[in-house]
Amino acid sequence: MNRDFWAEAIGSFFLFCTVIGSGIMAERLAGGNVAVALLGTTIATGAILFVLIGMFGPVSGAHFNPAVTLVFRLRGELTSATALRLVAGQIAGGLPGVWAAHLMFGHPVLELASKARTGIGQWTGEFIATFGLVFVILGTIRHRPQAVPASVALYIVAACWFTSSTSFANPAITLARALTDSFAGIAPADVPAFILAQLGGALAALIVGRAIFAPPEAATSG
Amino acid sequence: MNRDFWAEAIGSFFLFCTVIGSGIMAERLAGGNVAVALLGTTIATGAILFVLIGMFGPVSGAHFNPAVTLVFRLRGELTSATALRLVAGQIAGGLPGVWAAHLMFGHPVLELASKARTGIGQWTGEFIATFGLVFVILGTIRHRPQAVPASVALYIVAACWFTSSTSFANPAITLARALTDSFAGIAPADVPAFILAQLGGALAALIVGRAIFAPPEAATSG
Amino acid sequence: MNRDFWAEAIGSFFLFCTVIGSGIMAERLAGGNVAVALLGTTIATGAILFVLIGMFGPVSGAHFNPAVTLVFRLRGELTSATALRLVAGQIAGGLPGVWAAHLMFGHPVLELASKARTGIGQWTGEFIATFGLVFVILGTIRHRPQAVPASVALYIVAACWFTSSTSFANPAITLARALTDSFAGIAPADVPAFILAQLGGALAALIVGRAIFAPPEAATSG
Amino acid sequence: MNRDFWAEAIGSFFLFCTVIGSGIMAERLAGGNVAVALLGTTIATGAILFVLIGMFGPVSGAHFNPAVTLVFRLRGELTSATALRLVAGQIAGGLPGVWAAHLMFGHPVLELASKARTGIGQWTGEFIATFGLVFVILGTIRHRPQAVPASVALYIVAACWFTSSTSFANPAITLARALTDSFAGIAPADVPAFILAQLGGALAALIVGRAIFAPPEAATSG
Repeated sequence: MNRDFWAEAIGSFFLFCTVIGSGIMAERLAGGNVAVALLGTTIATGAILFVLIGMFGPVSGAHFNPAVTLVFRLRGELTSATALRLVAGQIAGGLPGVWAAHLMFGHPVLELASKARTGIGQWTGEFIATFGLVFVILGTIRHRPQAVPASVALYIVAACWFTSSTSFANPAITLARALTDSFAGIAPADVPAFILAQLGGALAALIVGRAIFAPPEAATSG
Repeated sequence: MNRDFWAEAIGSFFLFCTVIGSGIMAERLAGGNVAVALLGTTIATGAILFVLIGMFGPVSGAHFNPAVTLVFRLRGELTSATALRLVAGQIAGGLPGVWAAHLMFGHPVLELASKARTGIGQWTGEFIATFGLVFVILGTIRHRPQAVPASVALYIVAACWFTSSTSFANPAITLARALTDSFAGIAPADVPAFILAQLGGALAALIVGRAIFAPPEAATSG
Repeated sequence: MNRDFWAEAIGSFFLFCTVIGSGIMAERLAGGNVAVALLGTTIATGAILFVLIGMFGPVSGAHFNPAVTLVFRLRGELTSATALRLVAGQIAGGLPGVWAAHLMFGHPVLELASKARTGIGQWTGEFIATFGLVFVILGTIRHRPQAVPASVALYIVAACWFTSSTSFANPAITLARALTDSFAGIAPADVPAFILAQLGGALAALIVGRAIFAPPEAATSG
Repeated sequence: MNRDFWAEAIGSFFLFCTVIGSGIMAERLAGGNVAVALLGTTIATGAILFVLIGMFGPVSGAHFNPAVTLVFRLRGELTSATALRLVAGQIAGGLPGVWAAHLMFGHPVLELASKARTGIGQWTGEFIATFGLVFVILGTIRHRPQAVPASVALYIVAACWFTSSTSFANPAITLARALTDSFAGIAPADVPAFILAQLGGALAALIVGRAIFAPPEAATSG
């Protein structure tokens, strides 16, 4: 397998492990104060995103997210073969990240989530969260590429707080979170609607981003 | 409409949505510990400001704030037409940001705030907060323009804690917060005094900033 | 008065206002959970330091601290006249910062602290905290000057948590904190020992820093 | 002794002092809400790491960690004499850092930890945490060396939350934490297994990092 597969796999391992592991840690320690728990998971997730995107960006693009890979495929910046390999890496590394978190915290390795997450409010949240994520990437990558790690990390920090769903914004993480019966979980039956909302948001950002962040010459001729 | 209109509109959408959304989230989760709630909204607001200013700065200046637009108009760096277009974008994008937060969190889309915010202490707070915001922008933009996103974001983080009003510092956000009956709200009757204090602080910063951050030659001849 | 006086004065105004104001805010909101209050003041203080040092560094050095000014005077990088002017600015701007916080939060403008802060543990804390602050400045300013704002800000964030005194590390702020009867206060009788410990730490850092951060040629000839 | 010895010693003094001191502070103030305590120690530790690595990186590499020094020795980037001198500095400076924290907070200077930390979950945590730490260093140092301070600091922030052991990831700190009977402590009997897991993780990262972050020519010929 190519190095970009391994970059997506190892990055997704640490990202998914952080999402699940910090969720279990926060829930155990926060003594019922869910806002404190959310502060802990938010800071951990933002921190690891900054690190992983900076490290793996030059190797694979550091997507760790099939919705992001899909957008770059649709923009013609990736071949279909590369896109599939990146998504395969995201799944192949991300699921073991969940299991490693379970092993560390004494959960059964394999389990199913029971936490219901559904309704128009949460679907709207996932649509907006994923729209914003893709939009931030497209808006930052061309003119301030060195700011992408901090911008994506801090966008997710904000989105954890401004969306009612605490911002999954990632179909692979949504699947992975169906496999943990913890603070971070989502009941399997609620997964498809989340993923649909995420893909809708990503595609909307692809279209809007093309208009807003068009290169100056295109704007002139348009 | 020009691209700078859309930049202000989309940026204000996400900024206002973060202020209102994170306020509702924090209030729901914090179980009455308001300091924890303020930590959550502070971190979310600072994070999204960093992202949005970095992304939209090259397109529209990334004001998201009529007081800031007014200052740049008075400094002669914008035409009146552009200034009006930016403010129109701030309102046209910001209000839907409030409504999106309401939709995500199950509030009625249209509501009025009931939270009283008034008195000499809070007006002083808004004057100082907006003075500082404009002063930071003027003091950073010429010699360290690449530091503007972090400086504005972190200034607002600090101002949320050092002012008794938790630092609105923005007439458009003040209007928007009159339209939410949540942690972030302000009763409509209290809006005019807040906006007056904000404009006073912005104009004071315009005057003081001209003296302190004058280019060396001007200082020599003055 | 010169522009460096005003830079120290305005910077000290906002710094001292943040220390006192965020202390009052945090104490009011935290409902007795002092760790949450310390998180709030820590984040606010670190944030405003980053902003102010970046903005005023090119104008006055952005000391806001007589111990730091003394060290640069002893290193021969400032004349005595400049050093005195900077310290005058720190006092002339810093005390109104305290009073502005009192005005915003409804405290009497003039008051005296009642909070006892004394003992070998806290004096050791002030010695170490100020040693570290000066050491970080000397260690960062020559080879990574652009990192000084973030390094000083984050050093103070850490020192608020690792010292038993929550790290005043600044004789002017120590004086100012004697004039507030709030979370941030220090009883006037306890001020002299704090300032002595701070000056001791600063001078120790001056000596050790000269040995560790000597330029390579000096190290070769030594 | 060389300057790199003193850089490791002074850096380890402040790092270990922060880990122990912020642990005592957080435990005292948090009133039993361990998640809030962990937020405090996490932020303090990340902040001081950013500062120390930026300051001492050019002098000694800023390891403060025998596992990291071992990896650079095995990669042939250090002589054995230098590696031993760096580790000597880590111990010679780090232990006084623990004692300074005890002095500041009124603990007996010399004490032994009583907190049990053992089991497959925690050992897995130490393996993963140290693997990630070394992997992040190797992945960042070649192509984004200026990002090493922020990346290591934020990696540790995340690892404090995603591992069940709160991420020691450092044999010298593990030893030092056996000498404090506080929130940060580890019972002496539990130290050897932690150190073994850490060394295992470091060596695994050395091997995997060589494959993933190989220079392009090596990848072509491999």
